[in-house]
Amino acid sequence: MTDTTARIPKLTRKGQATRDRILQAAVELIAERGVVGTSTEDVRKAARVSGSQIYHYFDSKQALIRAVITRQADAEPVPGRPMMGALDCFDALRAWADAAIQRQEENGCRGECSLGSLAGELGAADEDSRQDLSNGFLRWQGLLEQSLRAMRDRGDLRPDADLGELSLALLTALQGGTLLTQTMRDIRPLRAALNAALSYIHSFAADQR
Amino acid sequence: MTDTTARIPKLTRKGQATRDRILQAAVELIAERGVVGTSTEDVRKAARVSGSQIYHYFDSKQALIRAVITRQADAEPVPGRPMMGALDCFDALRAWADAAIQRQEENGCRGECSLGSLAGELGAADEDSRQDLSNGFLRWQGLLEQSLRAMRDRGDLRPDADLGELSLALLTALQGGTLLTQTMRDIRPLRAALNAALSYIHSFAADQR
Repeated sequence: MTDTTARIPKLTRKGQATRDRILQAAVELIAERGVVGTSTEDVRKAARVSGSQIYHYFDSKQALIRAVITRQADAEPVPGRPMMGALDCFDALRAWADAAIQRQEENGCRGECSLGSLAGELGAADEDSRQDLSNGFLRWQGLLEQSLRAMRDRGDLRPDADLGELSLALLTALQGGTLLTQTMRDIRPLRAALNAALSYIHSFAADQR
Repeated sequence: MTDTTARIPKLTRKGQATRDRILQAAVELIAERGVVGTSTEDVRKAARVSGSQIYHYFDSKQALIRAVITRQADAEPVPGRPMMGALDCFDALRAWADAAIQRQEENGCRGECSLGSLAGELGAADEDSRQDLSNGFLRWQGLLEQSLRAMRDRGDLRPDADLGELSLALLTALQGGTLLTQTMRDIRPLRAALNAALSYIHSFAADQR
């Protein structure tokens, strides 16, 4: 998935900064209130821009939401290090999972404006959003698969490990664990989901001790 | 979680049938359009009841949605057999997972009015709904844990198997797999998620052959 800004020619540095500020305001409001609870007017006020400014960058709420989806898909689901495409050993996978768990714990197991939350809220209603979200998940799966390929290439995983299935198992664990953890305000679902996925990946370790 | 009907005294058989028809119409519309895209007026028309009738049973959209959540939480996430609380051997677990996969395939990997979809759409916005959804997930986890306990009691699972963690791993796999399968319109995420969870549970088999 490419950043939507690539499709907008001739954006000045100041214009880019304004657009970023609008998107950031949208992300923060959606984390708190969901997509439905967030109006374009709320975003305009929070970003401190005029009506003509926000309309210049996003001519509808749908355009704004699609840009939010693209922005979140281009980001890391677990911000910071290690990054999703560079988890090239079991320790790095574990560190990534621990970072996801720690982030949710620090956040009080509350909802965020994540790709998973957006998929839950928008999936059924809007076909354009569904495709954007699908592309985002595909991008994330591709990065995890790239990590697992590096592990296979260096001999950590068996040659017959199905990297597509393993990367999907890890991504669905993150998403399902996060959904239940945020709904139940309890870290255990996310921890159990990621433990299970990592253990499954480990069952394909070349060196089974 | 108890059926909300238990809290409504003196509902005649005809009254119960009308209430059920309203709820069924709500479930079908939400599956198609999401909660946000479904108005009380849409439900009233689809259920062929009068405004005063629907208001008699549900005095607000929120009351209707909460009753939908309770209804779905009291149902099986994978309708039919085997049932979630009676998966007392590895074959039954596998049959249950296969039924979930088959159901999504037959449904074209489309969204439903499931607890997971409702959690995705409502979780961030409304505290009452979040608690209802949380109770629903707890109920399902309890049923899965009951199944795994039967497996441990008959000696299929090791005595040290953490049944709380295993049941959460299975439930999060179902939810995360379903979320990605419906967003990507592709059965592979659900299949990978359930395979991984079952394999993880199997790694606690007492008889490791």
